[in-house]
Amino acid sequence: MYWRGVRDRFLIPAGRIYLNVGTLGPQPLPVVEAVERCTRRVAETYPPGVAWDRLKERLGRLLDGDPDGFVFPRNTTEAMSWVANGLELAAGDEVLTTDHEHIGGLCCWQALAARRGVRLRVVQIPASEGDPDEVIRRVRAALSPRTRVLSISHVLFTNGAIMPVRELVELCRGRGIISVVDGAHPPGLMRLSLRRLDPDFYASSLHKWLLAPQGTGLLYIREDWRRRFWPTVASGEWDDLPLGAHRLNHVGTIDESRLAGLEAALDFHEAVGPARVERRIRALRRRLAERLAMVPRLHITSPSGDSHVAGMVSFRIEGLDALDVQRRLARDANVRSRVIGEYGYGWMRLAPHIYNTPDELDRVVDLLAAMR
Amino acid sequence: MYWRGVRDRFLIPAGRIYLNVGTLGPQPLPVVEAVERCTRRVAETYPPGVAWDRLKERLGRLLDGDPDGFVFPRNTTEAMSWVANGLELAAGDEVLTTDHEHIGGLCCWQALAARRGVRLRVVQIPASEGDPDEVIRRVRAALSPRTRVLSISHVLFTNGAIMPVRELVELCRGRGIISVVDGAHPPGLMRLSLRRLDPDFYASSLHKWLLAPQGTGLLYIREDWRRRFWPTVASGEWDDLPLGAHRLNHVGTIDESRLAGLEAALDFHEAVGPARVERRIRALRRRLAERLAMVPRLHITSPSGDSHVAGMVSFRIEGLDALDVQRRLARDANVRSRVIGEYGYGWMRLAPHIYNTPDELDRVVDLLAAMR
Repeated sequence: MYWRGVRDRFLIPAGRIYLNVGTLGPQPLPVVEAVERCTRRVAETYPPGVAWDRLKERLGRLLDGDPDGFVFPRNTTEAMSWVANGLELAAGDEVLTTDHEHIGGLCCWQALAARRGVRLRVVQIPASEGDPDEVIRRVRAALSPRTRVLSISHVLFTNGAIMPVRELVELCRGRGIISVVDGAHPPGLMRLSLRRLDPDFYASSLHKWLLAPQGTGLLYIREDWRRRFWPTVASGEWDDLPLGAHRLNHVGTIDESRLAGLEAALDFHEAVGPARVERRIRALRRRLAERLAMVPRLHITSPSGDSHVAGMVSFRIEGLDALDVQRRLARDANVRSRVIGEYGYGWMRLAPHIYNTPDELDRVVDLLAAMR
Repeated sequence: MYWRGVRDRFLIPAGRIYLNVGTLGPQPLPVVEAVERCTRRVAETYPPGVAWDRLKERLGRLLDGDPDGFVFPRNTTEAMSWVANGLELAAGDEVLTTDHEHIGGLCCWQALAARRGVRLRVVQIPASEGDPDEVIRRVRAALSPRTRVLSISHVLFTNGAIMPVRELVELCRGRGIISVVDGAHPPGLMRLSLRRLDPDFYASSLHKWLLAPQGTGLLYIREDWRRRFWPTVASGEWDDLPLGAHRLNHVGTIDESRLAGLEAALDFHEAVGPARVERRIRALRRRLAERLAMVPRLHITSPSGDSHVAGMVSFRIEGLDALDVQRRLARDANVRSRVIGEYGYGWMRLAPHIYNTPDELDRVVDLLAAMR
């Protein structure tokens, strides 16, 4: 009953099974309305402005981070480019990344490699096994004296595997290596402590699991970088170093409705309760994974169990092409899913959230089980 | 009567005299509604996507430019930073700019100077005289063998003076100097032919005179740069050179409602008629300037006449502080204006648009005339 009421706060049409929050979250009605109110205030010539301090404090509480460290790019992709642009890397410096990165966290380094002669090295990680120790071993083995940056996802977009970010950050810091985390997924999905993970940079997209308006990103900058980091977009006070990370929020006229909607998304998230949201998503994901595991010829490519995976379950079906599976789910049950075609994986990815019902998931599993 | 009907399409409350479109335009109702429709489609999990080709073709017709050259940053500031970041300038290279640039077109070069040792040189221009030949003479005299870039506004934010961009671009091209134009104001304000001006880069903000949603910018890239320019934000296909300028539109998940609103702003602009909009703004500006000129102790700091100024009129009043004048106008007649405090000028700037009435302007002039 409670979750029925939650679902009713969304504008997702009846009959639509939306399982792609990993790409873009649907905004609940209060977020839509906050965007609309702000849009009208601007059109009335009374733009409300952004309550930066309040917004940063709220995010600081939710993500256990220092409010002064938050910057608001469009999305993870832009946040990652701001990091790559803002560092001073030289030809021959190495950036280490993995074979499970999203283009949004990868292309910035590719561009830097092409432009500045930085070397981009890719470590293969056992993403489906969910063994954090093995990830750490492989990363450690791939480090070299020239490694300046480790860039890795917190939760892999390919299958939801949780990377041992805290241990990797420690490993890096001891060697003077800059740690950059593509954290597109965790906010709104799982408990997150930026203070505990303590990376140099943490990039995210709040329009995914936190259900903020489309085009609302986040970049968290560790304290020691805030006064010596080059802003990618320079406007007034770009060089006023005591302003710290906030210099990067000076990018000219922004769309204030993004941040008004973000505040409404925080209200919504807090009203349901971050712990309850996390438990619900975990329960839905577990149900989905368990039932998928019983489908013949279906091979789950996400880690098993609950401790090393969040939000998403990926799989392949013997003899079936993932794009074809996706099309058939869309046709037969109006399902929105994601195919992980990247790196040639050819996986299907399903990502449930609090607006999904157990029945929806069961229906999708039944359809998959019946596919030939 | 016609203009009364136009005014009714805006959400500006009765009694509000909005004279600051030079900072941010008020969106007419159809633009607000387009933003809202798009926002709801995203929340319904059916993001409409951007009809890039159609949008670019429409802008190409309005601004007389090659559709393939258009990129959509947030605003002029970001567009200018994308230009500064995307060029390969070296220590000792000179960037020439003027003493009438907005921070959005200036800070990108300051940052490059601080970071890469580029030399930023400022030429003083006779902004209030409106003599294009003198501007050209001064720019020509300031060029040196090390000058690599000329960065200049098309219409000065300080007072609306129109710079002789075409002649300056020619001057630069003959010497192998890159021409970068901060064109924050012309779109929606005056007839603009990008083909005729032909700068290397033209940056703009469509949320000013074109009345598009807040946070809708434009960057036009000349053909010979489109395949060899470094994108500031790198995402998929950032290095697919045949994509040309469109590579720069790949910045991860964007807020599609900006561009849906931009299309509605184009509809609105076309429905009123670009030539009619331009004539109306010119008539309103002329009326304002002529009446202001009769106020004792008020000195207009915009060029006189119509041919070398657009949209804005700036002035100072002997013995009165501009910020105080601004406050009193706001208090007594709910006027929104802009003070040009930059560079210590201390001018008031008023910028009328089609939603303003002659009566509003007269009332403001009367208030100014009565100020002691």
